[in-house]
Amino acid sequence: MLSRNDCLDLDARDPLAGRRALFDLPDGVIYLDGNSLGALPRNVRPRLEAAVQGEWGRDLIKSWNTADWINLPARVGAKIASLVGAEPGEVIAADSTSVNLFKLAAGAMKLRPGRKVIVTEPGNFPTDLYILQGLRDLLGDVELRVVEPGALHAALDDGVALLLLTHVHYKTGAVHDMAALTARAHAVGALALWDLSHSAGALAVDLNGCNADLAVGCGYKYLNGGPGAPAFLFIANRLQVDFQTPLTGWMGHAAPFAFSDDYRPAPGVLRGLCGTPSVLGLSALEAALEAFDGVDMAAIRAKSMRLGDLFLDLALERCEGFGLGCSREAASRGSQVALTHEHGYPIMQALIARGVIGDFRAPDVLRFGFTPLYVRHVDVWDAVDILSDIMARGEWRQARFHEVSAVT
Amino acid sequence: MLSRNDCLDLDARDPLAGRRALFDLPDGVIYLDGNSLGALPRNVRPRLEAAVQGEWGRDLIKSWNTADWINLPARVGAKIASLVGAEPGEVIAADSTSVNLFKLAAGAMKLRPGRKVIVTEPGNFPTDLYILQGLRDLLGDVELRVVEPGALHAALDDGVALLLLTHVHYKTGAVHDMAALTARAHAVGALALWDLSHSAGALAVDLNGCNADLAVGCGYKYLNGGPGAPAFLFIANRLQVDFQTPLTGWMGHAAPFAFSDDYRPAPGVLRGLCGTPSVLGLSALEAALEAFDGVDMAAIRAKSMRLGDLFLDLALERCEGFGLGCSREAASRGSQVALTHEHGYPIMQALIARGVIGDFRAPDVLRFGFTPLYVRHVDVWDAVDILSDIMARGEWRQARFHEVSAVT
Repeated sequence: MLSRNDCLDLDARDPLAGRRALFDLPDGVIYLDGNSLGALPRNVRPRLEAAVQGEWGRDLIKSWNTADWINLPARVGAKIASLVGAEPGEVIAADSTSVNLFKLAAGAMKLRPGRKVIVTEPGNFPTDLYILQGLRDLLGDVELRVVEPGALHAALDDGVALLLLTHVHYKTGAVHDMAALTARAHAVGALALWDLSHSAGALAVDLNGCNADLAVGCGYKYLNGGPGAPAFLFIANRLQVDFQTPLTGWMGHAAPFAFSDDYRPAPGVLRGLCGTPSVLGLSALEAALEAFDGVDMAAIRAKSMRLGDLFLDLALERCEGFGLGCSREAASRGSQVALTHEHGYPIMQALIARGVIGDFRAPDVLRFGFTPLYVRHVDVWDAVDILSDIMARGEWRQARFHEVSAVT
Repeated sequence: MLSRNDCLDLDARDPLAGRRALFDLPDGVIYLDGNSLGALPRNVRPRLEAAVQGEWGRDLIKSWNTADWINLPARVGAKIASLVGAEPGEVIAADSTSVNLFKLAAGAMKLRPGRKVIVTEPGNFPTDLYILQGLRDLLGDVELRVVEPGALHAALDDGVALLLLTHVHYKTGAVHDMAALTARAHAVGALALWDLSHSAGALAVDLNGCNADLAVGCGYKYLNGGPGAPAFLFIANRLQVDFQTPLTGWMGHAAPFAFSDDYRPAPGVLRGLCGTPSVLGLSALEAALEAFDGVDMAAIRAKSMRLGDLFLDLALERCEGFGLGCSREAASRGSQVALTHEHGYPIMQALIARGVIGDFRAPDVLRFGFTPLYVRHVDVWDAVDILSDIMARGEWRQARFHEVSAVT
């Protein structure tokens, strides 16, 4: 088992170590929740200051041209594309993950007329399931086939229009085999839509290498774009010309400023735009993405796997009473691990009170995420040391850790 | 005709005069485009600084509770409600106007099963028309009945599910009679959805006084929330229990953090939420709305009408060759006026070069908006003086004013 000094050595030799200085991290905190909300990159403040004071305040409406606000969705999309194995013209940043799921799931149904089935899994991130339910209730003639992961292959038949899965499970971190499942969907003539919310920026996602058709993802987790940051969507080049969004807002029009009465889709992925883009949110996200400049996603993934293994090795050795809520194999996990404990909620509250920020997911999951750009090996060691101390002292039994908060 | 000194006198006696100091306006600019993008309120910078540095940077994920991020959509919605004649529990701030139009138009069709017609007018703001076209193409069995304003009453029959109109026309500023048209829609059993993008914050909108059913509006025009600010939506209390959004994202769930597999709508207007809210955008908008604290919308409307009349009186007297692109009656206009000129584009470019910011809308409309919180009578006088000078000198004939920019 590694000592604290071993961890310091690993950090000293970590090729990503220098990236931590790009983030403004609070003192006395070990932040293991970047899978829920990424930490603040230092360049976001000056970028937002420039956007607010210079662009909005000084140049006002002219900034649509002079600051090129109009191209923010494509510009930010191109940066994200480079992290997920896509071409620059296949990704835009816009709206929320939920809204983008609706656009792409509805668009997929249009691309597969006559097919009425969407396949997904139970326990998928709730918004993925909810959006499909809303689409089904709106269209009426849609079947949601919700099957356990082991039954996905069998559930894919020639009635299926779309397979929608989250690449990395939000709670267990389990990773789907994107290439195999996409191939299986294609074999029956279906499309595959991947939710990358818990993988973009943490895993070496290869959308085009897997022949993925459609994808969405979150801007505020591993991409560090800030709370409620714009999300992104991907439409494979080969599908763009036929893709129709149901959310035909003016920014997805071929000529938004012609103000014509009839909708005509913009060329390429830009047709996935809907309303006026969130300039402040996109500006923050654009700045945040600079933390990835020059970084190889393979290096991020390698460190992510090391950190996860380190946490589990130490925690399962030093802390009694926990179950494993995730795979023990790093290659089968995203950049997060999950422990289970019947008193998971107060234990997580006690950790947070000691400055170790993870999160709790009902009924019994303690979730810890590792953002390789700013989490160090020694942070993982210290976090487990504190967890071990809390368990040894029974600190979590204190009443104040049993209050249930609105958001955990 | 009023002199410049008369205008200074009017400003000295203007009860809203003190509000101008709440805005950070660039030197040497007369900004008459707040109907497109509102100017920067001074308190937005410190509010965003606190949201970025304090809430996101320091407290990270905890800020969903400690900074009450989770209630931002309802809190900002309640402030907007007070400006548009709605109850606090009837409005949320979320997503874009376009996305909200889709939610409410689709929801309206569900509330009127068996009815297949949506009535609107040609030349409506494009996104309103486009979103309806997208909804029709998705559902298939919907008729868009697009009729001139004079034919709206006749077009409303018992096959109509929804009347969708923009309260104030984006180009001409023409104001629809919300009470009369809503009553006519109700008389045939239809619902009325009002787009308040060009009226919220500028007119004394009275949604409940007019028995309006549904409404949307823009956060970045007269509400000054910044470029791409979150929009808002209104669902009348009486409709909320039956209202179903098709965009059933997790934030509109009754218990988002229960992470259950089945969608169950939140009580009240919160069911209109979809994805994770844009915390930075909502924080900026919340701060911006403080400029309305303690202001009577009737006072804003009264000044708005005076400013519009003043502009038209002066411009039509002093500048030859312009047509009138809007009503001459202030009560029939929003907080904007429109002049027409065959060389409208280069004339507007020449104005902008001299620091008078309005905008151009094809084919020949020069549009000037008056935000009563920061536009003075003397600004209007000076703007027309500069326009008059440009026309007298033929300054707009210079080649550099004939380049067409991407966004005008």
